[in-house]
Amino acid sequence: MEILQVESSLICTSRIAGLEKMSLRVLRSQGGKRQVAVDPIGARPGNWVYTVSGSAARYAAGNFAVLTDLTIGGIIDNWEPDTPAS
Amino acid sequence: MEILQVESSLICTSRIAGLEKMSLRVLRSQGGKRQVAVDPIGARPGNWVYTVSGSAARYAAGNFAVLTDLTIGGIIDNWEPDTPAS
Amino acid sequence: MEILQVESSLICTSRIAGLEKMSLRVLRSQGGKRQVAVDPIGARPGNWVYTVSGSAARYAAGNFAVLTDLTIGGIIDNWEPDTPAS
Amino acid sequence: MEILQVESSLICTSRIAGLEKMSLRVLRSQGGKRQVAVDPIGARPGNWVYTVSGSAARYAAGNFAVLTDLTIGGIIDNWEPDTPAS
Amino acid sequence: MEILQVESSLICTSRIAGLEKMSLRVLRSQGGKRQVAVDPIGARPGNWVYTVSGSAARYAAGNFAVLTDLTIGGIIDNWEPDTPAS
Repeated sequence: MEILQVESSLICTSRIAGLEKMSLRVLRSQGGKRQVAVDPIGARPGNWVYTVSGSAARYAAGNFAVLTDLTIGGIIDNWEPDTPAS
Repeated sequence: MEILQVESSLICTSRIAGLEKMSLRVLRSQGGKRQVAVDPIGARPGNWVYTVSGSAARYAAGNFAVLTDLTIGGIIDNWEPDTPAS
Repeated sequence: MEILQVESSLICTSRIAGLEKMSLRVLRSQGGKRQVAVDPIGARPGNWVYTVSGSAARYAAGNFAVLTDLTIGGIIDNWEPDTPAS
Repeated sequence: MEILQVESSLICTSRIAGLEKMSLRVLRSQGGKRQVAVDPIGARPGNWVYTVSGSAARYAAGNFAVLTDLTIGGIIDNWEPDTPAS
Repeated sequence: MEILQVESSLICTSRIAGLEKMSLRVLRSQGGKRQVAVDPIGARPGNWVYTVSGSAARYAAGNFAVLTDLTIGGIIDNWEPDTPAS
């Protein structure tokens, strides 16, 4: 699982069915790369989270029908990013 | 899910059966890498979209028989690419 | 799906059962990285193709029992590689 | 499978159901990138381990219901990291 | 599938059940990155092989219960690595 920081919510008026009412968050890696994840937990901007990818992401969303490849698995209690490595 | 920009359509006269009549789009990451995705939504060149990968991509195409590993999930309403990071 | 160029065929006298009689091709990305894919279409050296990865690659090979993680999905009609990006 | 070194445990008070009581470890690649894995073995900080990813990670956790995409598969008996390559 | 070179065997006294009696090999990419794969063929150090990843790796191991995400698929008859590209 990856360690990423919540940056903001993502708004898509035009999107596929199949994400139900799940919230989408923009996450940012320490190196600066941004990805989108489903958030079943309610993470806030600034939180460091770990994410579950692949088919497990659909289960992690609490509903296998949710069409995601990345889901927030948990908010890390204390996280100290270190010097950028990748 | 990744955040990519639609560049153009992709034309393949010779291709496998199994993509039905789905449209293929060339997408470009902020860093410049190009990938191909199925587009069930009707995105236009210039649109920023998020994409669903892996087995979820087949479901996202609206038909599990569509042979894709990357499908456009939604058009992002407002997206400001920032300085290239990866 | 990725966009890659066919370089050559790949010969493996010693290999696992499970690829049936499928042809293997060496593909090269614009950045120069080489990968191996199953070719159900009959692509030729120099052709630019798009490839399907993951579990969809097995379906794309036309036979789910074919043990591949990368299969050529189509030959791109006209492709202009641009300046290397990644 | 990847070769990574155990750095520490990971504490998440707020997390999804579905990880049961599995321990989470922060692992670090030789290049410095950090990831999170489920540890069914009891690895200690400093151990070099190999990790199983994808759907096999759920099986490797000993319970397919465990929502992970990365699981420690074994502790390597003797491992000499070499000069950083990637 | 990737093209990698066999470097050595890997010994793990403490490991998960589920790899049966499969041999583990350390493989090295042309760029120097090392990974671990199951070897159902009997490759030797120095051999260039191609590898199957993802869920196909479990099938390629000859037994879907083998918990691997990377399996050697074949030994390449003649392989000339070229100048490092990635």
